[in-house]
Amino acid sequence: MTVEFPAFTHTLLAAKKAKGLSFADLEQLIGHDEVWIASLFYGQNSTSVEEAQKIADILELGEDIVLALSSFPSKGLGTVVPTDPLIYRFYEIMQVYGYPIKEIIHEKFGDGIMSAIDFTLDIEKVEDPKGDRVKVTMNGKFLPYKKW
Amino acid sequence: MTVEFPAFTHTLLAAKKAKGLSFADLEQLIGHDEVWIASLFYGQNSTSVEEAQKIADILELGEDIVLALSSFPSKGLGTVVPTDPLIYRFYEIMQVYGYPIKEIIHEKFGDGIMSAIDFTLDIEKVEDPKGDRVKVTMNGKFLPYKKW
Amino acid sequence: MTVEFPAFTHTLLAAKKAKGLSFADLEQLIGHDEVWIASLFYGQNSTSVEEAQKIADILELGEDIVLALSSFPSKGLGTVVPTDPLIYRFYEIMQVYGYPIKEIIHEKFGDGIMSAIDFTLDIEKVEDPKGDRVKVTMNGKFLPYKKW
Amino acid sequence: MTVEFPAFTHTLLAAKKAKGLSFADLEQLIGHDEVWIASLFYGQNSTSVEEAQKIADILELGEDIVLALSSFPSKGLGTVVPTDPLIYRFYEIMQVYGYPIKEIIHEKFGDGIMSAIDFTLDIEKVEDPKGDRVKVTMNGKFLPYKKW
Amino acid sequence: MTVEFPAFTHTLLAAKKAKGLSFADLEQLIGHDEVWIASLFYGQNSTSVEEAQKIADILELGEDIVLALSSFPSKGLGTVVPTDPLIYRFYEIMQVYGYPIKEIIHEKFGDGIMSAIDFTLDIEKVEDPKGDRVKVTMNGKFLPYKKW
Amino acid sequence: MTVEFPAFTHTLLAAKKAKGLSFADLEQLIGHDEVWIASLFYGQNSTSVEEAQKIADILELGEDIVLALSSFPSKGLGTVVPTDPLIYRFYEIMQVYGYPIKEIIHEKFGDGIMSAIDFTLDIEKVEDPKGDRVKVTMNGKFLPYKKW
Amino acid sequence: MTVEFPAFTHTLLAAKKAKGLSFADLEQLIGHDEVWIASLFYGQNSTSVEEAQKIADILELGEDIVLALSSFPSKGLGTVVPTDPLIYRFYEIMQVYGYPIKEIIHEKFGDGIMSAIDFTLDIEKVEDPKGDRVKVTMNGKFLPYKKW
Amino acid sequence: MTVEFPAFTHTLLAAKKAKGLSFADLEQLIGHDEVWIASLFYGQNSTSVEEAQKIADILELGEDIVLALSSFPSKGLGTVVPTDPLIYRFYEIMQVYGYPIKEIIHEKFGDGIMSAIDFTLDIEKVEDPKGDRVKVTMNGKFLPYKKW
Amino acid sequence: MTVEFPAFTHTLLAAKKAKGLSFADLEQLIGHDEVWIASLFYGQNSTSVEEAQKIADILELGEDIVLALSSFPSKGLGTVVPTDPLIYRFYEIMQVYGYPIKEIIHEKFGDGIMSAIDFTLDIEKVEDPKGDRVKVTMNGKFLPYKKW
Amino acid sequence: MTVEFPAFTHTLLAAKKAKGLSFADLEQLIGHDEVWIASLFYGQNSTSVEEAQKIADILELGEDIVLALSSFPSKGLGTVVPTDPLIYRFYEIMQVYGYPIKEIIHEKFGDGIMSAIDFTLDIEKVEDPKGDRVKVTMNGKFLPYKKW
Repeated sequence: MTVEFPAFTHTLLAAKKAKGLSFADLEQLIGHDEVWIASLFYGQNSTSVEEAQKIADILELGEDIVLALSSFPSKGLGTVVPTDPLIYRFYEIMQVYGYPIKEIIHEKFGDGIMSAIDFTLDIEKVEDPKGDRVKVTMNGKFLPYKKW
Repeated sequence: MTVEFPAFTHTLLAAKKAKGLSFADLEQLIGHDEVWIASLFYGQNSTSVEEAQKIADILELGEDIVLALSSFPSKGLGTVVPTDPLIYRFYEIMQVYGYPIKEIIHEKFGDGIMSAIDFTLDIEKVEDPKGDRVKVTMNGKFLPYKKW
Repeated sequence: MTVEFPAFTHTLLAAKKAKGLSFADLEQLIGHDEVWIASLFYGQNSTSVEEAQKIADILELGEDIVLALSSFPSKGLGTVVPTDPLIYRFYEIMQVYGYPIKEIIHEKFGDGIMSAIDFTLDIEKVEDPKGDRVKVTMNGKFLPYKKW
Repeated sequence: MTVEFPAFTHTLLAAKKAKGLSFADLEQLIGHDEVWIASLFYGQNSTSVEEAQKIADILELGEDIVLALSSFPSKGLGTVVPTDPLIYRFYEIMQVYGYPIKEIIHEKFGDGIMSAIDFTLDIEKVEDPKGDRVKVTMNGKFLPYKKW
Repeated sequence: MTVEFPAFTHTLLAAKKAKGLSFADLEQLIGHDEVWIASLFYGQNSTSVEEAQKIADILELGEDIVLALSSFPSKGLGTVVPTDPLIYRFYEIMQVYGYPIKEIIHEKFGDGIMSAIDFTLDIEKVEDPKGDRVKVTMNGKFLPYKKW
Repeated sequence: MTVEFPAFTHTLLAAKKAKGLSFADLEQLIGHDEVWIASLFYGQNSTSVEEAQKIADILELGEDIVLALSSFPSKGLGTVVPTDPLIYRFYEIMQVYGYPIKEIIHEKFGDGIMSAIDFTLDIEKVEDPKGDRVKVTMNGKFLPYKKW
Repeated sequence: MTVEFPAFTHTLLAAKKAKGLSFADLEQLIGHDEVWIASLFYGQNSTSVEEAQKIADILELGEDIVLALSSFPSKGLGTVVPTDPLIYRFYEIMQVYGYPIKEIIHEKFGDGIMSAIDFTLDIEKVEDPKGDRVKVTMNGKFLPYKKW
Repeated sequence: MTVEFPAFTHTLLAAKKAKGLSFADLEQLIGHDEVWIASLFYGQNSTSVEEAQKIADILELGEDIVLALSSFPSKGLGTVVPTDPLIYRFYEIMQVYGYPIKEIIHEKFGDGIMSAIDFTLDIEKVEDPKGDRVKVTMNGKFLPYKKW
Repeated sequence: MTVEFPAFTHTLLAAKKAKGLSFADLEQLIGHDEVWIASLFYGQNSTSVEEAQKIADILELGEDIVLALSSFPSKGLGTVVPTDPLIYRFYEIMQVYGYPIKEIIHEKFGDGIMSAIDFTLDIEKVEDPKGDRVKVTMNGKFLPYKKW
Repeated sequence: MTVEFPAFTHTLLAAKKAKGLSFADLEQLIGHDEVWIASLFYGQNSTSVEEAQKIADILELGEDIVLALSSFPSKGLGTVVPTDPLIYRFYEIMQVYGYPIKEIIHEKFGDGIMSAIDFTLDIEKVEDPKGDRVKVTMNGKFLPYKKW
């Protein structure tokens, strides 16, 4: 309805559900962060044939999954701004706080960007009696603009 | 060229530059986070008349600035996807990691969203011999979908 | 032609029609508002496995429907502004009355938003000799912008 | 930054602020709902010369305001989907609940629409110890599709 | 290639062609205007089960057609401005004459709109030695904007 | 706010208002249809220097108006789909009745279009105790597609 | 990948290739210009049943092709600006020379347009030692804007 | 209203009008085609300082015009599809005849494009008792795709 | 998910993978640059039947591949700006360095463009202890704008 | 008309023209590549106050230019795909060769991107009797996707 995912995404999510495994369980079994593993399931990242095999073994899936997980993916969602409310909130955050973030990064680092490639992202649940909170931590290398 | 800001944004940024103050200095003087103060400068948030007056005093600016900072702003940037590379990286992160984040939040919390309103955002510089890193921490209340 | 819905939406609507049940009947049987139940049919909300089973039983549908109704959905319609005249009217209302609504909410509550998550929506038919009227009541928690 | 309003909107809002009047006060003085008055301020509706004069008198504004308020306006905001978070939430509500609303209206009334012209909209503050709530009531005439 | 129509549209048009019936013939047989009948074929309007059955009988089509014609349709074409030259001309007419029409309607009726729901549309062929002419007559109820 | 018009449009509309003339009055004085005259005011059509002079004389306007009305205009509104409700209804009519109209024109005339250039448009007020009606009559030459 | 064509376009192009016929050969056999014949293959124009039969006979294709070629087509490509470099060049020509062309046509003919319906288009290869040249000749009836 | 032109375009067109010169007259005086001269006026092409001076002299304009005409222009109209009916017809021609043209060029020349740079365009008025015709001749070098 | 490729692209890439051949190997075997060969695989360029046959032989593929590689392709990706991060960087380079490139080319060559048709593109890996570098060399014929 | 540049861009280009300096001359005087200097002029990069002062001295410009050149710029052109033919060619190159480039980079380097930040770009004129050629060399650090 909103965004189409590759067929192997559905296969992987269904197998994971059938096995009763959470992404946190997969983090334990595979040795990578749950967000990164989910990005692999959604066809947004790739891994070595060995790791792909390990995931296929855990989920009892075949060679086509190994191939899919170890191919270089075509990333991104196309040009859409997602209308799913959870994802849209992150776009809204950049509408409201994007230029303020730019100011602060420039002030602390100079002219350049935060890498989205040499980059990690973690999600934590912070329990709070007034309502639990989602904590998202992004960590990217600062890349200064080159002069030549 | 890319996004137009209100006139008071330019006034505030110029006064801050003339005073030689960083947003980190303003954080000390005003008692709010530097990102939130920058969001105030960019007309994306508002504050009380008292705090607005305090900021105007520090920057030696007049009544119109007090009025601007204490009015309820029309937020967001319009419909544009910013083409500034620093800001675009955050859009790209959501293209690549948006659905993985959704999976993990759903797994940890259930059907709902992270609030972008009851929300804070901090930026830290993490020194690293292989290249300093930008650390962005977002913290928003989890809001479960209501049934009725 | 305009918007594509998931296959289970068509299955649910057809089963409901075959049973001769209205959404008002389902409201009686399930104990949730008819609008919320319709949002479940359209894959925009989710419920517990138990309630999903109850709906499947009423409509004599199988396990795949239970699974679909109890999964966390990808919400929204994509980026389209619907061209269906009934739905477009609500967009037009926001074109004409959006900023006036913003003014009044700000005046009554301060800087913040009405939640679309901690939110209910009811539809009533108000009989009127000059032509019946549609009454739509939205009720969402006020969320004030956080300072930090 | 996001949406441009006509000059008289700014004049009216500034005069109202200077007089220390709320829209609720204007509702008392003018005898129309505060939302409708705000829609007049935003150039989305028009009124008679007499009422326009009354508003100008209350706010001590001149003939140009009388003219602006009594002219037939070009309505709507253009084609933009507003990025202001408060207004966007109403768009999101239609993304999530639009087709469900359509189903229920069709079930209760038959093939037709809710008028956005023969239409009223009210906003109430509902106090609640768990957080105050915004209640928005829309009331529009049902218009059945004509066969010919 | 340009706009996709529902499967039953193709079924209806093919059956009509096979029977050698024009829409003008159907107007005689069914007792509704040919434009309205064509809008039914294109899934833009709906009718009673009885009339749907009558159309199915004339065209020797089955129950699925009766169901399709008596369901409440999702109207409109999506967001596209059609590129078909015949249809585009009507969009161009509104580009060139839209605001002039608005002026004249406002002058004759006051602030309001012409209904597109309580509305009829007829097409006539006007023979003319310099080239036949297409005459399109639209007739919609005037709806004045409500004050409240 | 929505669409920008040339400066002379505002001059002409203001002069007409000051003179207390309706477009129907201008129709009497100038000998052309009120819709066509309004299209001239909106810079969508042009006329001879003589007629432009006559209009300028009636409205007591100067040489620049004569020049503007007798220049070849750049027509259309740009690419926007107008959000003004009155004008949008005509777009909606084409969303709902566009392909039906195409079918009927093809059936009556063959492969071709209705000209939007060799074209007239009239607006009448049809009084009706159940609510007055707007009658819009379009009349355009049929142009068959050329084979070569 | 870029634009989708109807199935019969592929059938016709494949049959023509299998027969070893060029469009220039078809021009000889059918008695219409090669560009017009290609427009028929692409579902952008239609012809009589007799001519459609003749084309089907030459290419040894069946009744469905006769039907496709003699139906009134839905023309245009949708709203896309093609990214194919050969076709894009014509869009670029209008970006660079569109208003200049408008000036010259207005100067030579007055206020009006060149018809795209009563219109022919020819393509010639002009041999040139510095590189062969493509010569495209468009010929459309001038249509003056009607006053009424 | 639709497309904004540089200030010097208006200056040049006004001076030409004041002098009573047509583009055909300028063709005689300057020795280049009227379409190319118009493209110069619209800031879509540039010329030598000598020729720019000659044009400025003919129109009795100053140094700023010489500078404007001899600078390298930023070409194109932006991303808009023009809604002016005269210019839109050329876009429509490419919607209807674009792929047919591509077929014929490929058949006559092989894989490549018609240059829009090494390119000329002429406009002729062809008198015809059934209505004068506009003849547009485009002539561009064929550029074959390079293999490497 | 992002861009759809023709079926033969997938066939070619799979066969190449099964054979364990790199594009660099194909460059050796076929005698054309690896980038150009990859453009052939993606359906963006075409070659002679002989070369197409040679490629099919190397990859042990059939007649349909020969046909696909020797047909004139419909080039480009449609209108999308790709969201794949690797490809997006090239779009970003043009956002940041596009007008600077235009200035320098104009300064060195005069008014004209770099051909994208008479054009080659090479990619090299430049080893560097601080991180390997991608070197992309584009080489296109300069085409001066023609005056006529 | 197409893209708006900051005021200081026009000031810098005019001063450079008045001094009769080419970007190649500035490369000699300032010690940075001409493309990078042009990117500074277009407000797409920034430099130190010292270098900004040096440029201002060479061009005899004031403090505001020093400030502009040493501020952190908001980069990019907005969301537009430029319609200027010279710049569009680079977009077209990515439409035709984008995925082929991605294949080759992946084959040579693995999953990652070419940096557009740690990046240089040079332009050379390659003289050629068959027509001079533009040689563009891009050189960016390869950034592998991080796993975590």
